[in-house]
Amino acid sequence: MTSARPSIQERLYPQSTCFGCGQANGDGLQLKSYVANDGVVATFVPKDVHSNGMGSLNGGIIATILDCHSGAAVLLDSAGDDDELTDFWVTAGLELRYRLPTFLAHPCELHAHITERTDSSLLVSATLKSEGKVRVQAQSRWARLPQR
Amino acid sequence: MTSARPSIQERLYPQSTCFGCGQANGDGLQLKSYVANDGVVATFVPKDVHSNGMGSLNGGIIATILDCHSGAAVLLDSAGDDDELTDFWVTAGLELRYRLPTFLAHPCELHAHITERTDSSLLVSATLKSEGKVRVQAQSRWARLPQR
Repeated sequence: MTSARPSIQERLYPQSTCFGCGQANGDGLQLKSYVANDGVVATFVPKDVHSNGMGSLNGGIIATILDCHSGAAVLLDSAGDDDELTDFWVTAGLELRYRLPTFLAHPCELHAHITERTDSSLLVSATLKSEGKVRVQAQSRWARLPQR
Repeated sequence: MTSARPSIQERLYPQSTCFGCGQANGDGLQLKSYVANDGVVATFVPKDVHSNGMGSLNGGIIATILDCHSGAAVLLDSAGDDDELTDFWVTAGLELRYRLPTFLAHPCELHAHITERTDSSLLVSATLKSEGKVRVQAQSRWARLPQR
């Protein structure tokens, strides 16, 4: 899943201090997402601290990594050929469906791709798979930040 | 917002190691929720590590605290008069609407209450207020865990 090429976050936004995917936040999750044929992919390895208290991954941590991973699809879409970001987007809406528990002991495979776009918003579909099964599905809507 | 009485989590589930609200998880957020007239309330004070990288609170951390705070409403509903929990619930679905940015520098006031119930599921409505304004709204659906 990893690649010789740096992750999307390292290439496009290395100075970010985001809790979920900021590579400059040493106390955050430091999610790293990579380009795939049909969207973006990432692996997340849960730690004990990320428990829901019942042996599974906390639903909020799942929300965090699926939101940030969807953000990587948006970042990639926004970057020019020279890897320069010309506009910025934020999550306006996030819908999660927790279909099965995600056990702490197994790595999570994330996938995301853009499903719809207008001038002012993007829709992203994302999944979390663990032990070969889709356990959580997410849909997010992203709004373009006004130019500074 | 705090009370002389211990929080719902301390009273009903003190041994929990949940990332968001487990009082036994020293590296988690340790959210504490309290009974109010019209539901449950909590205060969350963001730290720099919880940034979205742009000066606001990370959307996944917001998801975590609203999910766990909604869980406090569910815990309270499930507890008998003797504070014994007879059944357990998990989040099956979570929908978040991020209306305004939640700046890191200000405490967040959370509110949640149950809006609908059947034998097998509960619906909970929750809000995050900061600087006097509702910034995020959440709806969650909770499913009853099969008896062990």
